[in-house]
Amino acid sequence: MKLVRYGNPGKEKPGLIDAEGKLRDLSSVVPDIGPEQLGQVGLARIRKANPAKLPAVRGNPRFGCPVAHVPKFIAIGLNYSDHAAESNMPIPAEPIVFMKATSCIQGPNDPVMLPRGSVKSDWEVELGIVIGTRARYVPSTKALSYVAGYTVVNDVSEREFQLERGTQWDKGKGCDTFGPIGPWLVTADEIPNVQRLGMWLDVNGERMQTGNTRTMIFNCAKLVSYCSHFMTLEPGDVITTGTPPGVGLGMKPPKYLKKGDVMTLGIDGLGEQRQLVVPFKA
Amino acid sequence: MKLVRYGNPGKEKPGLIDAEGKLRDLSSVVPDIGPEQLGQVGLARIRKANPAKLPAVRGNPRFGCPVAHVPKFIAIGLNYSDHAAESNMPIPAEPIVFMKATSCIQGPNDPVMLPRGSVKSDWEVELGIVIGTRARYVPSTKALSYVAGYTVVNDVSEREFQLERGTQWDKGKGCDTFGPIGPWLVTADEIPNVQRLGMWLDVNGERMQTGNTRTMIFNCAKLVSYCSHFMTLEPGDVITTGTPPGVGLGMKPPKYLKKGDVMTLGIDGLGEQRQLVVPFKA
Repeated sequence: MKLVRYGNPGKEKPGLIDAEGKLRDLSSVVPDIGPEQLGQVGLARIRKANPAKLPAVRGNPRFGCPVAHVPKFIAIGLNYSDHAAESNMPIPAEPIVFMKATSCIQGPNDPVMLPRGSVKSDWEVELGIVIGTRARYVPSTKALSYVAGYTVVNDVSEREFQLERGTQWDKGKGCDTFGPIGPWLVTADEIPNVQRLGMWLDVNGERMQTGNTRTMIFNCAKLVSYCSHFMTLEPGDVITTGTPPGVGLGMKPPKYLKKGDVMTLGIDGLGEQRQLVVPFKA
Repeated sequence: MKLVRYGNPGKEKPGLIDAEGKLRDLSSVVPDIGPEQLGQVGLARIRKANPAKLPAVRGNPRFGCPVAHVPKFIAIGLNYSDHAAESNMPIPAEPIVFMKATSCIQGPNDPVMLPRGSVKSDWEVELGIVIGTRARYVPSTKALSYVAGYTVVNDVSEREFQLERGTQWDKGKGCDTFGPIGPWLVTADEIPNVQRLGMWLDVNGERMQTGNTRTMIFNCAKLVSYCSHFMTLEPGDVITTGTPPGVGLGMKPPKYLKKGDVMTLGIDGLGEQRQLVVPFKA
């Protein structure tokens, strides 16, 4: 299934995209798409609904983040070998884990705002893993059974805040609007092999990133298992799994976002995002 | 006011500690102590209640974290000059910001569990700031008006996970049970000068940390202002503000927690915590 949340910010309703690509309202089946709906029981309940009998939604409403009330937004650094090289950083011996503030989460097509004083805002197309079932010390061999589905994340990053204002990256990763997620939460059963998904990101129509989840250093199963050894993963937690090469930081000379730029990005089977870059506004 | 949440984990009820130190039930006034109650309107509503008319709670119930549904658990590193020295790290030019997973939050007297494979679990008594009003790009001069109150935090840390498993600290900061908060949320009006509070931590009755918020490198007003420039602070967010000297990492040789140890800690006017250290249990 392709699950969505549509409508104005803070007022999103649950929906699904049917086989013809039509948006259908799920409000009669579930109150929202959130931690309570993402476990096997919750998803089975949604799966029982007949899409053809759900009301079709007219027009082209805004999409919100497809998961309500994300408890934790966990991020993995330098998880594609080519990206580590372009960032002048060594390939990590084990996953690098940091956190994005949940207050940065927004819909997939909402504008991205440059923070006040930003001079190095950058893009990162990433595969997002959405946890469905509480996971604690799970082995890699079973880790994917704890996953509800997958989504697209733009791990927007302010490089000066991240890398030049102390050693800890979180400062440059959680600025407001830096967490576009969606458009869809695609349930895991629809993704035959999560390690064979092409991904791309354009700025103003020019291709910047091209990658494939095949070249992850640590695959999704390993990442879920690994993170679950340091903290309990809860339903609705999102793990964004690192970006392939082609970020602005890695260009010679580096190239960063400016107001008016448009980022478009997507992952095979998971849909596309589009964000206009807007200036800082208090 | 001294606000609390009491009862079994996940079933806590709101309460307050009256002038005689008695626990009174607040359930008839508010459904919980959470983001909705922490703004000026919410606190004013609680303040109108006459404590003498609220039901006294019998016995000695467990205390939970005094704030329900903490959206973000933000932490400041190396914010006491003596602690930076004992950690062999330079005094930071600006605050170091990292995040503790909200899943690590627990009551002030709940046992602290050593993570699987932990060999360097350590203690850190800290002053916690609880945000009351949404704060975004606020100046230091006004920052404290966004604060609902203060509390005690033990920023429990696994030093091997934090410092020897990559560059990012979050991995060693958010393990389950690593975030005891409480016992009370003391509203800001009851703390005449938040930069003049003594603080201490004992392990097995032996004094390890002695400090005073007077020696913070960046004071509370600066920290709230600073963090609000990198992310929107939301009602219920907790900023834990760094620890004074005396952590296990800084001893020669270093000394870490083992099962059966008991940590007791407190801050002037904010109450005390007590945690038994228990072994890893799946």
